[in-house]
Amino acid sequence: MFLRSHVVTAAMAVVGLLAMISSGTTSHASGPTKPAFRLAIHGGAGAIARNKMTPELEAKYRADLERALRTGHAVLKNGGTSLDAVVATIEVLEDSPLFNAGKGAVFTHDGRNELDASIMDGSNLKAGAIAGVHHVKNPIALARLVMDKSIHVMLTGDGAEQFAREQGVKLVDAKYFYTDQRWKALQDTIREEEAAKKAGKGHAHIVHLAEDEDHKFGTVGCVALDRSGNLAAGTSTGGLTNKRYGRVGDSPIIGAGTYANNRTCAVSATGTGEFFIRSVVGHDISALMEYKGLSVADAANEVVMKKLVEMGGDGGVIAMDHDGNVAMPFNTEGMYRGWIDADGTVTVEIYK
Amino acid sequence: MFLRSHVVTAAMAVVGLLAMISSGTTSHASGPTKPAFRLAIHGGAGAIARNKMTPELEAKYRADLERALRTGHAVLKNGGTSLDAVVATIEVLEDSPLFNAGKGAVFTHDGRNELDASIMDGSNLKAGAIAGVHHVKNPIALARLVMDKSIHVMLTGDGAEQFAREQGVKLVDAKYFYTDQRWKALQDTIREEEAAKKAGKGHAHIVHLAEDEDHKFGTVGCVALDRSGNLAAGTSTGGLTNKRYGRVGDSPIIGAGTYANNRTCAVSATGTGEFFIRSVVGHDISALMEYKGLSVADAANEVVMKKLVEMGGDGGVIAMDHDGNVAMPFNTEGMYRGWIDADGTVTVEIYK
Repeated sequence: MFLRSHVVTAAMAVVGLLAMISSGTTSHASGPTKPAFRLAIHGGAGAIARNKMTPELEAKYRADLERALRTGHAVLKNGGTSLDAVVATIEVLEDSPLFNAGKGAVFTHDGRNELDASIMDGSNLKAGAIAGVHHVKNPIALARLVMDKSIHVMLTGDGAEQFAREQGVKLVDAKYFYTDQRWKALQDTIREEEAAKKAGKGHAHIVHLAEDEDHKFGTVGCVALDRSGNLAAGTSTGGLTNKRYGRVGDSPIIGAGTYANNRTCAVSATGTGEFFIRSVVGHDISALMEYKGLSVADAANEVVMKKLVEMGGDGGVIAMDHDGNVAMPFNTEGMYRGWIDADGTVTVEIYK
Repeated sequence: MFLRSHVVTAAMAVVGLLAMISSGTTSHASGPTKPAFRLAIHGGAGAIARNKMTPELEAKYRADLERALRTGHAVLKNGGTSLDAVVATIEVLEDSPLFNAGKGAVFTHDGRNELDASIMDGSNLKAGAIAGVHHVKNPIALARLVMDKSIHVMLTGDGAEQFAREQGVKLVDAKYFYTDQRWKALQDTIREEEAAKKAGKGHAHIVHLAEDEDHKFGTVGCVALDRSGNLAAGTSTGGLTNKRYGRVGDSPIIGAGTYANNRTCAVSATGTGEFFIRSVVGHDISALMEYKGLSVADAANEVVMKKLVEMGGDGGVIAMDHDGNVAMPFNTEGMYRGWIDADGTVTVEIYK
């Protein structure tokens, strides 16, 4: 369909870059040649208040994001698959207490940590997902096992942990996930909830309070393109502070929080999960590319900056097409994000 | 975009009907005028063995399918919404012991009944879903409550039942779901599993045995168009006989087993859920209509008869567009299905 000359491709890349900048999308244009491999991550989007962000804390975030990027880069550089890179990268973010996934997961109303994750292989549309586990140190690795070692896509709750044990995954004690910061956030939210109840305010208002926390969307995600040209995407989260009723958001839902397809793109999302499920965000970006011919930047913008905004959904996505072009639109104040090129050049950003 | 003369519309309907018949799709063409309202259902697709189907049993299936259709029709005729009609219709199928949903749900490996359901409102893209509940008589009604009475889309396990109690839903004892037929199916499957293990055959083979049961895809679903022109879709299931690990299929996944959007269509799916999740079946049919301009018949065919077949996914969908055109493609031997017109004309079919 397209003239495949370098001149045309380079011109398209420049136009695309301008379009992305003008619409609030962050991107790393690939230039005239397709990169050997590339990897991008997010560490959640939301109201990242600049006044609460000290230089020391920001340095910690940037250091962990860069460490995750370099971990994934090493996998890809050594010829590893995009799936391997996605798992290795997300495990770094899960092991950091800064992000709402793995170690840093928020607390449920009952004072537990309830974890969801999913992964998808763009080369064959295989996928794995887990929801509602309490003792899995690295949920993304378990999602990978569901994909590779079971005939299923999605396992939940105690059953998912039973599968983990049978696969030789070492479960951790619930206290592994305890952090002062998240425990305090739960207590603050419950206190605000009680006050709101006394003031006669409804449940929606109460949850809105909970979501006003700085770390409301600390979900982590990764998209990668490997040397073989295969795309993969993964997402991991602790969900919402003070969540109850076994609530599941978009992170473990294939097509919503995570989607990958070599024909189009790899996507990982972060935001108000309910809106992302209703909008089938990941697959919608892919479909706009495949059926309407949009670029990854235009497709991601259409979904995040228009459709989700009209609906009231806050958050963002990272999306990478099969040529390594990256789009990172978000409609919130900030989104922890970064990408790394084949030559090891790292870019990490937080605000717009 | 189209000439809106009756002649053209009628000609298109005829062409569409021929295309659907030739490709194995069942449809009820709407003719030159849009119907006031319409409703369609499925009761699962699979290897419905004609030699095991007695005239008496077939009459029972047909009677329950017709009763469900007439229940939904009464709601729509009296000016009820498509959402109300979907819930009322699916409740009839859930209360029947013949279908793998509600009363007739299959047993898990642990001898429990684990139910999933979801519903979506095409007018505003609101949605509700539950997964892994054990004491809810009508899961579709609880999915509706999640949509209407919570800020969430998906609730799971014990948490979903806690939400049900708080909403005044009467939970039933687990023994409500006991049927000799399903218990026998579990024992047969476990026996086959043991035999396969002794023969050194793998897990995939074992699950294949389980899926060879007649009722493997007894999931139920409904799509409806109401007098206001609003579409809705719902799906309810007991999942797979002998399932374990808290496995969740496509039925409670918005975008996969259930999707509704007034701009395009309402879809409910039944089949090997894992393939339907990976293919994001419901949203893909919608996207092919919205972004590629396909008719509901062509879009549903593309996904069920081509994409799913190539991937190895068995099953079918019912899909209805905003003009009331219905497509019901399935790539299995049969699919329990039917539709009812505004004038009360009922059609029920089982085989191709």
